[in-house]
Amino acid sequence: MPVETHRIRIETRGDSQVLDLTARLIEVLSEAGVRNGTATLFVIGSTAGITTTEYEPGLVNHDLKHYFNKIAPEDGRYQHEETWHDDNGHAHVRASLLGPSLTVPVIEGKPALGTWQQVVLIDFDTRPRNREVVVQLIGE
Amino acid sequence: MPVETHRIRIETRGDSQVLDLTARLIEVLSEAGVRNGTATLFVIGSTAGITTTEYEPGLVNHDLKHYFNKIAPEDGRYQHEETWHDDNGHAHVRASLLGPSLTVPVIEGKPALGTWQQVVLIDFDTRPRNREVVVQLIGE
Amino acid sequence: MPVETHRIRIETRGDSQVLDLTARLIEVLSEAGVRNGTATLFVIGSTAGITTTEYEPGLVNHDLKHYFNKIAPEDGRYQHEETWHDDNGHAHVRASLLGPSLTVPVIEGKPALGTWQQVVLIDFDTRPRNREVVVQLIGE
Repeated sequence: MPVETHRIRIETRGDSQVLDLTARLIEVLSEAGVRNGTATLFVIGSTAGITTTEYEPGLVNHDLKHYFNKIAPEDGRYQHEETWHDDNGHAHVRASLLGPSLTVPVIEGKPALGTWQQVVLIDFDTRPRNREVVVQLIGE
Repeated sequence: MPVETHRIRIETRGDSQVLDLTARLIEVLSEAGVRNGTATLFVIGSTAGITTTEYEPGLVNHDLKHYFNKIAPEDGRYQHEETWHDDNGHAHVRASLLGPSLTVPVIEGKPALGTWQQVVLIDFDTRPRNREVVVQLIGE
Repeated sequence: MPVETHRIRIETRGDSQVLDLTARLIEVLSEAGVRNGTATLFVIGSTAGITTTEYEPGLVNHDLKHYFNKIAPEDGRYQHEETWHDDNGHAHVRASLLGPSLTVPVIEGKPALGTWQQVVLIDFDTRPRNREVVVQLIGE
């Protein structure tokens, strides 16, 4: 049973941008030897997270950011910022809450997603970043 | 090492109903060839999530819903609703935050859960749904 | 392809203490037969969770706890507490939201983490606990 390590590299704008990784994941799977198993997507870094959502403009351009900003506001007080003279305390808190990782079943070479369910990276950092997402495939 | 795909189908009432999947997972494992490895539970759709909790009435009938409603209120404003003339913007935000997936270690045919720790599906949608949870087993 | 079950046992103070598990995970991997695959960390119990963060004092001693306390306040009302004459309703809600589990890719014997990204256990309970984290390794 093979284990395969793939990587998705993607430029973000930060600022809680929501990026659709689904086509990139399907591309990885189309070239992979693993036909049945799991794909674990894991973002390197502590100011971004991975989940699923319906990738439509209302949710991805407004609602997700708006409600994350209620949980950990951009203008809140963070000791992280006071210690490091940094401005991204909210990004760290949001990223820890969302989590860096998602494991998706792979069935006959495809991710087991719903029609209106896309795999997304949310980059909470306060500046554009070049992100690396490890896609670890295990199966047969 | 086998990979096995099982499915749990379950009817929900929506409205942040918390459903205990533990007995169903144990049933899947009792029929499975995988004795040691992992079980990845993944709910198809973008308005439900999976986690663990102590399955007792206070938490599952009241507290979880109450605090999710503080995070993303039912009567909040959502561009998702304005765009699609829909009423489940809060369900999408809550589901993305919770995540659609959980990976549980399987040890000698059993899920490695605590005594007061159950695997649950939370259906945040605003109407009853027939949900499908993929249970992807990997191991030996 | 081996499946290996390891365990990390760790004493906590509770009260949303954030504990760095990274060195313990690296130690597990250094003794393991699995060189490439995944490590699933799963905490037994329903009042703690696992995620990643930058393990620096501002975030781990203040910010994470502060914003979790906004989501599910220690002095909030919980039916869990009224039913069981208990004081840890907030711990249950926070733990369910964060999730008990994290799956990290393992590449050439090492976890695929960023330089400022540590694997952490957050113990939300209201008293010191002896925690057990299952580390399930799958791969080759």
